[in-house]
Amino acid sequence: MSQRLNGVTLQSVKERDQQDPLARFKAHFTLPEGVLYLDGNSLGAQPVAAKKAVDDTLDQWRDELIKGWNQGWFDSPERLGNLLAPVIGASHTEVSVTDNITLNIFKLLGYIVQQCPAGRKAVLSEGGNFPTDGYIAQGFCQVSGSDHRFLPEGASLADYLDGVAVVVLSQVNYRTGKLRDMAATTQLVHEHGAEVIWDLAHSAGALPIDLNGTGARFAVGCTYKYLNGGPGAPAFLYVHESVQNGGWQPLSGWHGHRSPFAFDADYAPADDISRFRTGTHSALAYAALEASLTLWAEVDMQALRDKSLALSNLFRECLGDLFQTHGIEDITPEDDERGSQVSLIDSEHGYAIVQALIARGVIGDYREPGLMRFGFTPLYLSYEDVWQAARHFREVVESVEYQNPQFHVRGAVT
Amino acid sequence: MSQRLNGVTLQSVKERDQQDPLARFKAHFTLPEGVLYLDGNSLGAQPVAAKKAVDDTLDQWRDELIKGWNQGWFDSPERLGNLLAPVIGASHTEVSVTDNITLNIFKLLGYIVQQCPAGRKAVLSEGGNFPTDGYIAQGFCQVSGSDHRFLPEGASLADYLDGVAVVVLSQVNYRTGKLRDMAATTQLVHEHGAEVIWDLAHSAGALPIDLNGTGARFAVGCTYKYLNGGPGAPAFLYVHESVQNGGWQPLSGWHGHRSPFAFDADYAPADDISRFRTGTHSALAYAALEASLTLWAEVDMQALRDKSLALSNLFRECLGDLFQTHGIEDITPEDDERGSQVSLIDSEHGYAIVQALIARGVIGDYREPGLMRFGFTPLYLSYEDVWQAARHFREVVESVEYQNPQFHVRGAVT
Repeated sequence: MSQRLNGVTLQSVKERDQQDPLARFKAHFTLPEGVLYLDGNSLGAQPVAAKKAVDDTLDQWRDELIKGWNQGWFDSPERLGNLLAPVIGASHTEVSVTDNITLNIFKLLGYIVQQCPAGRKAVLSEGGNFPTDGYIAQGFCQVSGSDHRFLPEGASLADYLDGVAVVVLSQVNYRTGKLRDMAATTQLVHEHGAEVIWDLAHSAGALPIDLNGTGARFAVGCTYKYLNGGPGAPAFLYVHESVQNGGWQPLSGWHGHRSPFAFDADYAPADDISRFRTGTHSALAYAALEASLTLWAEVDMQALRDKSLALSNLFRECLGDLFQTHGIEDITPEDDERGSQVSLIDSEHGYAIVQALIARGVIGDYREPGLMRFGFTPLYLSYEDVWQAARHFREVVESVEYQNPQFHVRGAVT
Repeated sequence: MSQRLNGVTLQSVKERDQQDPLARFKAHFTLPEGVLYLDGNSLGAQPVAAKKAVDDTLDQWRDELIKGWNQGWFDSPERLGNLLAPVIGASHTEVSVTDNITLNIFKLLGYIVQQCPAGRKAVLSEGGNFPTDGYIAQGFCQVSGSDHRFLPEGASLADYLDGVAVVVLSQVNYRTGKLRDMAATTQLVHEHGAEVIWDLAHSAGALPIDLNGTGARFAVGCTYKYLNGGPGAPAFLYVHESVQNGGWQPLSGWHGHRSPFAFDADYAPADDISRFRTGTHSALAYAALEASLTLWAEVDMQALRDKSLALSNLFRECLGDLFQTHGIEDITPEDDERGSQVSLIDSEHGYAIVQALIARGVIGDYREPGLMRFGFTPLYLSYEDVWQAARHFREVVESVEYQNPQFHVRGAVT
């Protein structure tokens, strides 16, 4: 007997898996039995290669001790930056893997604002963006004396660029999954004499990005979501080659010095992307990430994009009738305007539905108010996985399983 | 036949090992065969427990995925801070393990300077300190408009405190091993209306520290040297409870927000030590460090200090006659004025001697000009280890083994 979800048969999705050019990547990840993981937009699954990479680095620490720093640890930020560059459309030597997004935004704010004339020092943050981007902009403005402003969500960017040195924008919104037009927006900001720092947290590894091609000069992003670098893996920072010699970045530490081992008293920035480093970084954290980035070299980004849209549309197709009958609002943007997530709103039951799904092994996440987020990671999700996740969703909603009191207990989630 | 080094017999040091109350800790570390490691002041050896802790965290990432953040990862900065607190004489909730030293100094500079009156905004850096402390002070002053000044090495601190908001001082100098009197210096700085940020990189885990007892209000330090947290392990930051509510720190990220999961647009600092967090941290890096810090709970810090001095004096005693005959200058400070290292100067042969020792498995390090540094880590070094290291040193020097051209090739060391 063929099972159907709103007309979509299990057989049909199995056939799609057989034709999936990315299907082979699933074997490169270790996912626990019985889990359907739709939260790769929060923390990516573990690449099989990560364990050996980390174990090897532990052995290196044990056996080589201090010499490990001359055997690859010290150069990790640039080496991993070069591995990541093609995934985001950057050139060799334009990307550094270092610190976290919050800190990398601060560096770029300082770097950009110091080069702006006195009347153009304001920093513009995007309303509705992931909060840390605004928090660190506020911190920067407090210490530097720059003016901090918010761009209201949905407002026209062009109306808010007077006197602005730099605006921080996410390419993909973390709540809605809405994708900005990077080329057009970058051009608009540049025409107003400002710079834009792109936050790629929800786009790097989720879709093809062409930083060089779109004229982007500055970007940051994390590696623990779609790039599968591990919990709290180091972030990255991109600076276009043409603007790499603009002076200091304010978080000037010894690893960003021109000659870190000369131990000079005065700071002098390195003349390349390594000036955006600060202090000593965790060799273990980089090892796990390097294992993942090595895998990305084999990924066809257009095939990834095609599958991302197909998976998210499959999920919505399997549930479309349910949304109507149960008052769930699908705010997922259209294909050409979204990242790699489905965003559903149920103000009354959203939290409990997500908890009930988690109890069944279907991992999504919830953000107030009422938002259920489901991330679609083409490297380790099959069409059948998505169909099964939709089946669970139907069952939870149709059986009102979410009314169980255990699904109403509140706890912190990231 | 009893072997003697300047009168010190091998038998005598074996007897000291038998009476050593810290001897049992050596079994908690994994050191490679044939290595005598006198570089724990650069990168500490690996605790046996580190491997399992990291492997367990890898398994947690694989099996629990995003839920790991609710199972200990998120609270790591405070949990590890509380483990570390007794080792440095801090109270519960006064220490956060987070980011690196460079960044933590920046946070404290911003936090302190914003609370100072307009005429007292200068930042004073210590000449001869580890350079990153000065580099980040320069970066802070560049972005904040504060005045940056250097305290010349050896100058009287009291003469340089006019208009100074904060001075950054190392408790133990990284080159000479010279130990400052924390209580007297803190009192002096406070009497001049300024604050001091203590850098404990070369003292935490090397000797007893009494932050609370000496009146210290602010400190930073790293955990990858004497605390054995692993290469690039996260640093720490101490803020005395009485000054924890002084406003923002400028690197304001979402993990330092009062309600990180409320996703408010505006930043509001947490009302405790967690306000000094920035963004998401590496769970793997914290796992290795936690394994080490757990071990420190069992260490008698006075016994550690006694053995540290005994080991370093043993090394010097075994070599004392050689220093004279071969023109090697021992600049190691006296017992009550030093950390846990021996510092020797041979401007002509120092680099090659260190390289020749490394080739024999005796790991020390070298800093221009002419400085040979040897760190003494009482938890995993025996008296016999130190005696054998001194024997190798004698053989290298007496046989002029260091003249071998291979020991004159230059390479970066950390």
